[in-house]
Amino acid sequence: MPMNRRILLNEIPQGKLTEAHFATDEVTVLKPGDGEVLIQTLLLSQDAANRAWMQGATYRSALSSGQVMSSGGLGRVVESNDARFAAGDIVAGDLGWQEYAVLPGNEVAAQHPHQGPLSHGLSLLGVAGLTAYHGLINVPGIHAGEVLLVSAAGGSVGSLVGQIGKIKGATVIGVAGGPEKCQWVVDTLGFDACLDYKDTQSPLRDQLKAAAPEGIDVYFDNTGGEILQTALFAMKLNGRVSCCGAVSMYDGKPLPGPYGIPGLLVTKRLTMKGFLVSDYRHLDQDAFHDLSMWARSGDLMVVEDIIEGLDNAPRGLMGLLAGENRGKRMIRVASE
Amino acid sequence: MPMNRRILLNEIPQGKLTEAHFATDEVTVLKPGDGEVLIQTLLLSQDAANRAWMQGATYRSALSSGQVMSSGGLGRVVESNDARFAAGDIVAGDLGWQEYAVLPGNEVAAQHPHQGPLSHGLSLLGVAGLTAYHGLINVPGIHAGEVLLVSAAGGSVGSLVGQIGKIKGATVIGVAGGPEKCQWVVDTLGFDACLDYKDTQSPLRDQLKAAAPEGIDVYFDNTGGEILQTALFAMKLNGRVSCCGAVSMYDGKPLPGPYGIPGLLVTKRLTMKGFLVSDYRHLDQDAFHDLSMWARSGDLMVVEDIIEGLDNAPRGLMGLLAGENRGKRMIRVASE
Repeated sequence: MPMNRRILLNEIPQGKLTEAHFATDEVTVLKPGDGEVLIQTLLLSQDAANRAWMQGATYRSALSSGQVMSSGGLGRVVESNDARFAAGDIVAGDLGWQEYAVLPGNEVAAQHPHQGPLSHGLSLLGVAGLTAYHGLINVPGIHAGEVLLVSAAGGSVGSLVGQIGKIKGATVIGVAGGPEKCQWVVDTLGFDACLDYKDTQSPLRDQLKAAAPEGIDVYFDNTGGEILQTALFAMKLNGRVSCCGAVSMYDGKPLPGPYGIPGLLVTKRLTMKGFLVSDYRHLDQDAFHDLSMWARSGDLMVVEDIIEGLDNAPRGLMGLLAGENRGKRMIRVASE
Repeated sequence: MPMNRRILLNEIPQGKLTEAHFATDEVTVLKPGDGEVLIQTLLLSQDAANRAWMQGATYRSALSSGQVMSSGGLGRVVESNDARFAAGDIVAGDLGWQEYAVLPGNEVAAQHPHQGPLSHGLSLLGVAGLTAYHGLINVPGIHAGEVLLVSAAGGSVGSLVGQIGKIKGATVIGVAGGPEKCQWVVDTLGFDACLDYKDTQSPLRDQLKAAAPEGIDVYFDNTGGEILQTALFAMKLNGRVSCCGAVSMYDGKPLPGPYGIPGLLVTKRLTMKGFLVSDYRHLDQDAFHDLSMWARSGDLMVVEDIIEGLDNAPRGLMGLLAGENRGKRMIRVASE
């Protein structure tokens, strides 16, 4: 009887997430029931949103303690009682932090067909790529000559947003933590500049003033908090803020919003708009087309940060919340 | 030699505005120079924005101490050295808190021709009416069957926004201070409900939950602060917030923004957009047309709150910031 190793969310964190919030067990692999599919986990996506799900209801219901930790992932169908899937198929779904998942067929999606490695299904052509694409192109839009600021610039979404901005002719300024990462964002990803929010010598507002003396047209916000505050004060008239996430705020207690809400929005006529990637599903084919094309041409570099082994999932997520990843972080649970 | 009585902003307030921040003097009426126009002040507009101008640069430069207090108004041309204006014309401009103003001709506007009293030029067809119209129709838009929440519902802009919402088929909920004013908003202005933010027995969020159990589609924000906070938590998915002003925040120290920025914007896919009435000048003819039509048909009631005498301008503005006005507050400096 094959066994299923699982990592459970043992306790909902009130403050910072630690290993102690998780527990590991092994249970027998379940047989899929009517209409269900048994999937072997190959790759798990790690996302700042995983932490937000622990805070209460977001765009999905809150996680509860004692359950397998939720996570999107890619897997191979082992056994299917849903006519749409057959053993051997590669599929996507909320597999969770476990080696095997049984899901209803209607919660499983066929993997978008693509050339390139399997992992692109979680990066370039997964939630990261679609979020970057829709959150820039279809929320604020970006025009040649505009100044685009992107926080978490070295992360899964930010690294793609900035590169798409460059492809569209914008001047692109990233924000990341630490001089090495900032250097990498400029040298490797091709951003025009990258500001170090951890720099204790030079406040972010001064760095931003130097990099964008006339201000920002579009801010793609992955972080909220102090970086959002600094960006708001630096927006040009009629500036647009795409609200993608608030990673600075997930791993702790709720904090009030930035100063200048709503005053700055009025005086500068700013627009702030939140979105979820699923709001733009009707435009996913555009994203798949453009992202694949840019990756093939070499204009878009796909950076992946793959950690081996299910047991490293908690450490991987904590590290991601601390900003240690470069590009799209995943956990490889089993090889293809 | 005619004298010009003036009220000066003697000191920029650091906290609450008081009479002590103003001083009165009398000086000789100036002769208009080349291209200038001498105007006798008839009516002065009182707006929460007057207080915001004291806080620093907004959409106009900050006020400085020792100058005549700024204020939009309507006046009669006494003498003109600009060919576009002649003695006797009724014009609009930043006349300031004084009996006579000398302005460059290009800072003076001919009054939009209309039937009805002169005061409509500062209410229905002035900044108040245009702000209400554009800030509802051209910023978030409003559709029949939607739920519209309006703060400062008894004020110059809010009283019109709610009535326009009703004309467009929305369910309209106001927020105002005190049971009498709330009753008046419902009985006289025709809102479906009006919530009392000063009610110490029933928190605003509970009142809002009862009035709009399924949430809010559009929030027209005149106040910022706690009311904005409560509204954000009550927005429906894809809700829109029109940021018009932040009267709760002008008369004191800056405060941080509401909780849930940007988190709530993401999970609920909200849009917040700030605007100034002047952004929509190209659509002013629509506003003049519709507002006049609705006023003529009786669908739109124009409420004016006119205080007699220039010397009452400081008290009038302080009262407006405390929410004592009903409809559009003005100071009558001289009768037609």
